[in-house]
Amino acid sequence: MTDFAATKALFHLPEGVIYLDGNSLGPLPRAASDRLRRTVEDEWGDMLITGWNRAGWMEMPRRLGDRIGRLIGAEPGSVVLGDTLSIKVYQALAAALEMRPDRRVILSDSGNFPSDLYMAQGLVGLLGDGYRLRTVAPEAVADALSDEIAVLMLTEVDYRTGRKHDMAALTAAAHEKGIVTVWDLAHSAGALPVDLAGTRADFAVGCTYKYLNAGPGGPAFIYVAPRHAQTARPALSGWLGHEAPFAFDADYRPAEGVERMRVGTPPILQLAALDASLEIWDQVDMNALRARSIALCDQFIAGVEARCPALEIASPRDGARRGSQVSFAFEQGYAAMQACIAKGLIGDFRAPDIMRFGFTPLYIDQSDVARAVEIIAEVMHDELWRDPAYQKRAAVT
Amino acid sequence: MTDFAATKALFHLPEGVIYLDGNSLGPLPRAASDRLRRTVEDEWGDMLITGWNRAGWMEMPRRLGDRIGRLIGAEPGSVVLGDTLSIKVYQALAAALEMRPDRRVILSDSGNFPSDLYMAQGLVGLLGDGYRLRTVAPEAVADALSDEIAVLMLTEVDYRTGRKHDMAALTAAAHEKGIVTVWDLAHSAGALPVDLAGTRADFAVGCTYKYLNAGPGGPAFIYVAPRHAQTARPALSGWLGHEAPFAFDADYRPAEGVERMRVGTPPILQLAALDASLEIWDQVDMNALRARSIALCDQFIAGVEARCPALEIASPRDGARRGSQVSFAFEQGYAAMQACIAKGLIGDFRAPDIMRFGFTPLYIDQSDVARAVEIIAEVMHDELWRDPAYQKRAAVT
Repeated sequence: MTDFAATKALFHLPEGVIYLDGNSLGPLPRAASDRLRRTVEDEWGDMLITGWNRAGWMEMPRRLGDRIGRLIGAEPGSVVLGDTLSIKVYQALAAALEMRPDRRVILSDSGNFPSDLYMAQGLVGLLGDGYRLRTVAPEAVADALSDEIAVLMLTEVDYRTGRKHDMAALTAAAHEKGIVTVWDLAHSAGALPVDLAGTRADFAVGCTYKYLNAGPGGPAFIYVAPRHAQTARPALSGWLGHEAPFAFDADYRPAEGVERMRVGTPPILQLAALDASLEIWDQVDMNALRARSIALCDQFIAGVEARCPALEIASPRDGARRGSQVSFAFEQGYAAMQACIAKGLIGDFRAPDIMRFGFTPLYIDQSDVARAVEIIAEVMHDELWRDPAYQKRAAVT
Repeated sequence: MTDFAATKALFHLPEGVIYLDGNSLGPLPRAASDRLRRTVEDEWGDMLITGWNRAGWMEMPRRLGDRIGRLIGAEPGSVVLGDTLSIKVYQALAAALEMRPDRRVILSDSGNFPSDLYMAQGLVGLLGDGYRLRTVAPEAVADALSDEIAVLMLTEVDYRTGRKHDMAALTAAAHEKGIVTVWDLAHSAGALPVDLAGTRADFAVGCTYKYLNAGPGGPAFIYVAPRHAQTARPALSGWLGHEAPFAFDADYRPAEGVERMRVGTPPILQLAALDASLEIWDQVDMNALRARSIALCDQFIAGVEARCPALEIASPRDGARRGSQVSFAFEQGYAAMQACIAKGLIGDFRAPDIMRFGFTPLYIDQSDVARAVEIIAEVMHDELWRDPAYQKRAAVT
């Protein structure tokens, strides 16, 4: 059983701040600073080029991939780290499309994260030849599965509303139609238990800087089901996905298994921060985390709804159908969120009108939730969002 | 005029080590450790998500791109950082190919870094439809330029031999045939003056962890000539290359100029290390660096040739035709390099028989070169490479 009071002490949280934005950028694990110092000074500084072997840098993408694999129900050796999530989406889509050469359509939903849709648009634009992306409403996905669809690309948890797709059911329905699945776990990994092996997902991708606390720009991961790993063809065929990178052969030959999805030189400093964070995650029971996450979200919903009638819930009320976030719609949501931030409650705003709050049991507890409700109630009751200073939008929100 | 005695003191070099491998992984700038600590503790730790604005994280890929731009003769606003070099090669190639829709051939040379060739193979494999990669010997490139070629992709400085292509002449010859150029500056940026604007290069890419000292896995950069920047279509169309990333539109619209070549969330920790290194580079006169680099290489060649007849020079003798490295061919080169490393001289080995030594005036001086020659002479004279311990190859060399 995970001791959540103990894990809270492992994170640095600024005095007076309630951080309900760990679903955007996770906070600093206290151990990460020292881990980075050692990687920089003892490894890069003193080992220089030999760090690739002596400090195990070259193996990090696979070694850390296995540790993330445990959190998402992946088979050992089926997850590898590297690149950004957008690149990993492209890589998974390209490999998945090639597995259904007779079909031309990628199906997704309008609740997917825009970059996933953009990457699909870039890929089908490059391929031409009738390849296209089709998006339907999230609730219409099951009915849109047809013999025309090559690949179903979905994000399990909607970044705006927190609505959670039924991964097992949709994967099974897709497979019945001969469709290959690509699941984006950006708001799932570290947020709730995922069972990639059990649901027979084909490909999955995700990022590490949200719930997994790897820091700004932490690398992405990709999962390839072991049954596909020896046949999936990497379109992004870089040297570190080669069977023998240091033979410097003229022709590309994919490495064994998921290693073929590696592309270029791995970002060792970012991986070191992730390594420190995974020291915490290695101890976490995902079922216990999920139970606590649902309890915190329920407490928050009850509190806000009781005190702030102007805020309209935009997330499912049923915890089982929700990720680890709660969103409320409010027309002046941007300004209201700025007012919350000014009072020490950090959440997120997503256009056009979504106030989004992430719940991360490793470092958020009931008293934080109670205080967050107080602040929101104050902002709404006193209409603090009317302050013109809060209306002016920054470039990044 | 750059004071090279002063710059040497800005790097951490382990006691007793002569590091002639800065062309593989540059050493640690002393300031990088503290810069990382501040980014981790004061920015990530204390600013949390607001670091994207308050610490200027979101602008780093462009801001640091301009500073690298000065070193490679790029116009302001034409360079952006992100991803790995292999990804940037793919991105440049895809955009370049689309500029010549009537042609199907990418031309490169057999001395190019294998990952560049692999990425081209992955791209043409995905495109099908007659697209192909043709490689010729480096000296045959000029004659192979024809109306059939869509894109000429070359690495300016050969990673094995240090042979330097004439970028201005080849770019002009390519343009005469209507060919778009993609230059890889992996062994040029920070090694010698490059004049992208003056040579009218179309696209260029490069990495930061070699001569630019950004640390293991530092991000790559891409240059798009301003005359192409508004029309080049990004195949890797990620959200941070969108005109309005935080509008979360359903459809991709490329950002203004080179920003469209951004893809996903930038690796802030790696960028912070690069930022610290660029503080040094900002002061460097590239012509002074080049003069000193050639002098050091010449000293090294003269010394080794005088003392080690078994080593056959594999680099051009004419400094003007060479990058900032010197290579010698020797059948037992792997073992000989291991013996050198055991004696404190770190160089590199590249299959099948190349002993490679990089010369980096910011922290290597004449006395280092003299000592390096002594060590190599000792290894060769005493045939230390015969030691069986040096024959066993590690995974990464």
